Amino acid sequence: MIGPNMATMLAVMMTDANLSPKDAQSVLADAADRSFNRISVEGHTSTNDALLLICSGESGIQIKSDNSLSRFTDELTASCIELAKRIPSDGEGASHLVSINVTGAQSESDADQVARTIAASALVKTAITGADPNWGRIVSAAGYAGVEMTIEQTDLLLNGNVLFKRGQPVPFDATSVSQSMASQFETCIDLNIGSGPGSATHWTSDLTVDYVRFNSEYTT
Amino acid sequence: MIGPNMATMLAVMMTDANLSPKDAQSVLADAADRSFNRISVEGHTSTNDALLLICSGESGIQIKSDNSLSRFTDELTASCIELAKRIPSDGEGASHLVSINVTGAQSESDADQVARTIAASALVKTAITGADPNWGRIVSAAGYAGVEMTIEQTDLLLNGNVLFKRGQPVPFDATSVSQSMASQFETCIDLNIGSGPGSATHWTSDLTVDYVRFNSEYTT
Repeated sequence: MIGPNMATMLAVMMTDANLSPKDAQSVLADAADRSFNRISVEGHTSTNDALLLICSGESGIQIKSDNSLSRFTDELTASCIELAKRIPSDGEGASHLVSINVTGAQSESDADQVARTIAASALVKTAITGADPNWGRIVSAAGYAGVEMTIEQTDLLLNGNVLFKRGQPVPFDATSVSQSMASQFETCIDLNIGSGPGSATHWTSDLTVDYVRFNSEYTT
Repeated sequence: MIGPNMATMLAVMMTDANLSPKDAQSVLADAADRSFNRISVEGHTSTNDALLLICSGESGIQIKSDNSLSRFTDELTASCIELAKRIPSDGEGASHLVSINVTGAQSESDADQVARTIAASALVKTAITGADPNWGRIVSAAGYAGVEMTIEQTDLLLNGNVLFKRGQPVPFDATSVSQSMASQFETCIDLNIGSGPGSATHWTSDLTVDYVRFNSEYTT
């Protein structure tokens, strides 16, 4: 689910709202899919993670209509995302948190697949470590994700700067983009791959010399 | 196909045997699938690789019966494997070549999927860099490959030493296994995952501090 070496992640969400066990399970699964299941360090699935939602019902507020359940899910998802992002932020040796936002896919699951493939690329991760605005590594990773892309509608922004537009690289101030990558802890990748309704965001850490040291120099 | 950053791999095989263009294409595709398509450095697909087979026919020896085609394919595959293995051996910063041999899968494609997943794990690769006989990282990577495994029939050998047998870790001399990993350039992982007929071998490099330096410190 996360990546760190056999780590146990134990996350507990608490609310004083009143939800049925069935609704609570369902909203938590939705929230997990868009938060804890959208982070990675190196993508090696952990063997023992757990996310719990405890509903005391103490407030007496009943959450059961479609409308209130949907609002509750949104708020729970936002809280889970806030917590989940702290994991790659604190990833082994991480010098950057990387947010990868994919839009324009045919479905959310296609967008997720593209974001996850970019996040798993050691070449993308090391480019970010080195503050290198390397559009080629990002676009080529998207290209082998196995998802339909419309190249003429493919645009890439890095920290808000357009590097690639309608399937072509465009001139940009590499020094300034590199400086923004070097000076900010979070690097934002925005990639549009077509005109579909599917979007997804994935958060990962970069890949540093310290990651390799940490994972090669200790013995378990 | 390989992994290094936008590298062009251009491989040319030559023979003086006489093959029809159709047979030559078919045997080359088979050979590629078991050689150049079974290597990786970090798994980031290259954008422009090519493998050619040139048949001069100069020897006058016609290769067309099922038997001679099959022998020709075996020999061509062996030559392609020999060349292909040199790529991860010379991978960016590589300190080990890693051979991952998966047996007992339901099909060759299942075995390939497991071998490929182990090869893509940064935790497995850094363990090998550090000469750490870490069976847990290897077995857990196999576990998330999405392929059916029979845990009671799962055995793992590292450089010929049994670390895990019938789904359980077994006592082994960690110092001696670690020394064999540290002293040899090639690390051999043999993983059996059931009693099926499918097997496949994948070759990769380990993940070192020098890989990260090389890919983060230069700008393209």
